[in-house]
Amino acid sequence: MNTIFFHHQPRLVATGSIAGPKESEGIVGNFADKTLKDDTFGESTYEKAECKMLTFAVRKAIENAGLTERDIDLFVSGDLLNQIISASFTARDFDFPFLGVYSACSTMSESFALAGAMIDAGYFKRIVAATGSHFSSAERQYRYPLELGCTRPPQAQWTVTGAGGAVIAAKETTSSPIALTSATFGRVVDYGITDVNNMGAAMAPAASDTVVKHLQDTGKKASDYDLIVTGDLGALGSRLMKDLTWEKGVDIQNNHVDCGEIVYNVIEDEFQGGSGAGCSALVFNSYIVEKMRRGELNRVLFVATGALLSTVSSGQGESIPCIAHAVSFERV
Amino acid sequence: MNTIFFHHQPRLVATGSIAGPKESEGIVGNFADKTLKDDTFGESTYEKAECKMLTFAVRKAIENAGLTERDIDLFVSGDLLNQIISASFTARDFDFPFLGVYSACSTMSESFALAGAMIDAGYFKRIVAATGSHFSSAERQYRYPLELGCTRPPQAQWTVTGAGGAVIAAKETTSSPIALTSATFGRVVDYGITDVNNMGAAMAPAASDTVVKHLQDTGKKASDYDLIVTGDLGALGSRLMKDLTWEKGVDIQNNHVDCGEIVYNVIEDEFQGGSGAGCSALVFNSYIVEKMRRGELNRVLFVATGALLSTVSSGQGESIPCIAHAVSFERV
Repeated sequence: MNTIFFHHQPRLVATGSIAGPKESEGIVGNFADKTLKDDTFGESTYEKAECKMLTFAVRKAIENAGLTERDIDLFVSGDLLNQIISASFTARDFDFPFLGVYSACSTMSESFALAGAMIDAGYFKRIVAATGSHFSSAERQYRYPLELGCTRPPQAQWTVTGAGGAVIAAKETTSSPIALTSATFGRVVDYGITDVNNMGAAMAPAASDTVVKHLQDTGKKASDYDLIVTGDLGALGSRLMKDLTWEKGVDIQNNHVDCGEIVYNVIEDEFQGGSGAGCSALVFNSYIVEKMRRGELNRVLFVATGALLSTVSSGQGESIPCIAHAVSFERV
Repeated sequence: MNTIFFHHQPRLVATGSIAGPKESEGIVGNFADKTLKDDTFGESTYEKAECKMLTFAVRKAIENAGLTERDIDLFVSGDLLNQIISASFTARDFDFPFLGVYSACSTMSESFALAGAMIDAGYFKRIVAATGSHFSSAERQYRYPLELGCTRPPQAQWTVTGAGGAVIAAKETTSSPIALTSATFGRVVDYGITDVNNMGAAMAPAASDTVVKHLQDTGKKASDYDLIVTGDLGALGSRLMKDLTWEKGVDIQNNHVDCGEIVYNVIEDEFQGGSGAGCSALVFNSYIVEKMRRGELNRVLFVATGALLSTVSSGQGESIPCIAHAVSFERV
């Protein structure tokens, strides 16, 4: 059993989100709390801009919840930069304790899972879970110097510049109807993909594994969810994931959407869509949560997906181990 | 309140540990499950050796607990390498789910805190928490290529080559008398230290902050613990930490020990002692736990300490934010 159940139904109280310039042109542009015209956000480096975006998302989530910093008991976060400096430096600005996590682009659902568990168990009353990413800081860390202007292969995705987060709280503290009801922790799955430009193909098996395990553990059918939202598989990865899941006897063809696929106005011949920890954090904490708030979605399984490689592991000839954590959100 | 209480007293069932050649000459040489003569552990790179050591510690902890891989519900781990590849690639070898964490050299206590919470809340029955580090992989990632043979300044510490971990389990599954009774999550504390060779000074304020907060939250006195074990402050950092704590009205002069200070046979004129996620993981999960097992220590507060910098943050002129998480272990 990889799934834990939140019998006390911790609530998602409010979210905070911020979108980069390119991201603001897509669907989240209408839903994010802030849209940037300048991807440096007034900072001298991309890393500092990424950190400032994450800090914005945290402050905004707290503000939107009608709370102050002093009401928050714990901050759960991580990011893609080496030593998760965006999360750590964001945490430095606040007085509440910090729980640093890492599961690459699966960080948002891992953070939700932990926040849900800590609230459900009665350890804390209010926790902020958040993450983000920045195209330019990720690109120069994981791939090539931006100045080289390398051509991207067709299977590549584009790291989202953006951040998102939410306040998760004990149900007696809020009137929010959006509850976290369970979480499934993923296994590390590696099908031997070594192409660091093809994250979608690398992550698809992990996403499929976690979705199928979640349904087994909970005794649910895929159709019990209005929507199964994966993190950043992109167009190709989503196709592979649906095929792999179908092979295991589970059909999610009609109720699956991928944050990477919808964050930009994708033309698949050009590129596969968005990626990065900020991809699912931004899309979920703006667009998806708003749909739940309006009652247009009532049961959502959020499955952020992560590729656990580094430039060193790839350079040493390793394939790409991947993971996906799932959290179910239900209007109650 | 930054502290959570484990009313169901999850138990530390058994540990697994492995020490590098230099580490084996010190106190842990008599207590580790395995001591290495060759710091490559038969692998072609230091990163692969680090991963193999962590895998060894995990397998050994499970074996020493009289369990098999199938009995384990979750693996909580992280490490110092970019994108925590040692932990992720270790997790790939197993079938249980993986929770990736990062708090630099505070990873061991963060992992214990989470494992304790998840068991105490009844979500899982048995969890492995583990971490490790390797001098040569850390040195070339954080500092200089080994081949340069740079001179180390007197305030520097030496990253421990080693790994350690433990099986944490629900009390009804084991006869182990060593219980986890509470955990205090640390805040990020930054006193403005920018010297990346002086981790002890950078981390001392965070360690002091967490120890004082733990005592406030629990209503305990420092003398209620037989030993307060910090992670890897080293000799200088330990002195600073004791002074800072004393200034806040708490005297830990007589019952404090630092894993970094005791892991080698330190001559302070030469260097400050050990560091790295593996430092406290190795010392705690061999020497300290054995002392508890024998009843020579009955109440131990384990406070691993982490410096949350990266080469990028330092290169961009940032100071070093630090953190410390505390977990109390008691013979019951």
